[in-house]
Amino acid sequence: MGNPRWACLILGWIAALPCPAAPGPTTEQVLAASTADEWVEIPPEHLLLVELASGRALVELAPQFAPEHVANLRRLARQHYFDGLAVVRVQDNYVVQWGDPDAADPARRRSLGKARERLPAEFDRAVDGLPFEALLDPDPYAAQTGFTLGFPVGRDAEHTRTWLLHCYGALGAGRDAPADSSNAAELYVVIGHAPRHLDRNVTLLGRVIEGMEHLATLPRGEGPMGFYRERSRQVPVLRVRIAADLPEAERPRRARLDTHSRSFRLLIEARRHRREPWFAHPVGHVEACNVPIPVRALDTR
Amino acid sequence: MGNPRWACLILGWIAALPCPAAPGPTTEQVLAASTADEWVEIPPEHLLLVELASGRALVELAPQFAPEHVANLRRLARQHYFDGLAVVRVQDNYVVQWGDPDAADPARRRSLGKARERLPAEFDRAVDGLPFEALLDPDPYAAQTGFTLGFPVGRDAEHTRTWLLHCYGALGAGRDAPADSSNAAELYVVIGHAPRHLDRNVTLLGRVIEGMEHLATLPRGEGPMGFYRERSRQVPVLRVRIAADLPEAERPRRARLDTHSRSFRLLIEARRHRREPWFAHPVGHVEACNVPIPVRALDTR
Repeated sequence: MGNPRWACLILGWIAALPCPAAPGPTTEQVLAASTADEWVEIPPEHLLLVELASGRALVELAPQFAPEHVANLRRLARQHYFDGLAVVRVQDNYVVQWGDPDAADPARRRSLGKARERLPAEFDRAVDGLPFEALLDPDPYAAQTGFTLGFPVGRDAEHTRTWLLHCYGALGAGRDAPADSSNAAELYVVIGHAPRHLDRNVTLLGRVIEGMEHLATLPRGEGPMGFYRERSRQVPVLRVRIAADLPEAERPRRARLDTHSRSFRLLIEARRHRREPWFAHPVGHVEACNVPIPVRALDTR
Repeated sequence: MGNPRWACLILGWIAALPCPAAPGPTTEQVLAASTADEWVEIPPEHLLLVELASGRALVELAPQFAPEHVANLRRLARQHYFDGLAVVRVQDNYVVQWGDPDAADPARRRSLGKARERLPAEFDRAVDGLPFEALLDPDPYAAQTGFTLGFPVGRDAEHTRTWLLHCYGALGAGRDAPADSSNAAELYVVIGHAPRHLDRNVTLLGRVIEGMEHLATLPRGEGPMGFYRERSRQVPVLRVRIAADLPEAERPRRARLDTHSRSFRLLIEARRHRREPWFAHPVGHVEACNVPIPVRALDTR
């Protein structure tokens, strides 16, 4: 190698030592210098609108990781299944969860219509030929972490399996004890420190790319696990739609930085070595959940 | 060693492999079996009350890590410095910050009275004889992590320096560019995923042990870095007090599990190996910010 910085990065990976910052741009400079072809528009089939009484969140779906759950969620959204349901649980430093408040009552629960009742667990998948932008720093939970197609991911030590990470904003499908008991009719979003112990224990199917504040500021539930005790405190879900199902004039359009572009690699380095003059300690490390995946609005909708 | 579980833990530390769960209690069982002498009452000199218009948060202060900042904060609280000031910044997935909205205006800013204007940086300290409950799992940012006297901490590879971690709920002293520009008159609390790149870059002086929801649900600021643009949106700080300064009948009393007790060590293992039947994947790892430090109310105040 003959490169002392690379030697330090490798030793640093083992011993968690900070390495001197390579000369390079800050986050702001990386974004300013990024080129148009490094930004990918999120296809309208992958863009979910979640409209709550508190405001709208946009989600990028991950059919590459959870094809069955995303397909079922599309069926549910197309049937307007979620409209008029509610946020039933908000647990501080954990999750916001919405679905049918009557789900446990066979007499009153809403029909899933053409959607499936149970789906196979999609906790992880084969690595196959997926692109992977690896992080060099160690991770407490996964043998390796990095980014695949716009999402923070983990990989096992054998480099055969990969999975989405429970970072802030991750969208998951609530389940009961059986691994195949989720169907995307009950959904949750992480609103606190990454509960990474849930990785590979539940199906993740996307991540919030806009409007997290409308979820994270909801009043916490006073019951066990943050469930609201009173129905009157539940927050109404106004509607949930796939952007592709909306008239074109109503579709929001968003692009995100390609996680397999040169600018994204520079962004990782900018987050690892904080070059802003405020930083007194070189840092020299970064974890997957602390690398922002930049998103741009292509319109004002 | 001759113990396959220990061998796995050591190999797992290097390769981030999950190890089979040792038989042992769940979090709930650990807490139920803990003994009275494993709970330590937080001294009233270390207990800070932060009363916002949205509700009250309690903070355990860390004079062992930031003696100068804690002493100055006591002076400020005793002078009622914070009463009538405001939360000026709420940045989603980052921090809530309160202080004097007129701090930048020498003509209008509130006097610090007997408190000091500048304090030495207390970013880290010597390990000395501090107790340390170490975590075995690797960490992206620190050579070693664990717990000292009720706080999640990092240590360097040489085992000479230690520092508080920016976990959810950490209380820090805002500063400008110079390392010695903080004085505890401008305070922030982490309300999102741990911004661990701030470790050793800013003085932490405590952590919120109750009432995080009154901070984390505040409306996000619409300005750069989450500052409120309009004064009318700032959230009033009603009062900030050290419990010891209140009449005894008004002091809340709280205890936390001793982080150097047998039960806390069992709790770490319970969080590492999630033994609740819901978990399909053994996990086998944990990070410092995902180990809760249990707190009990000794009264209803």
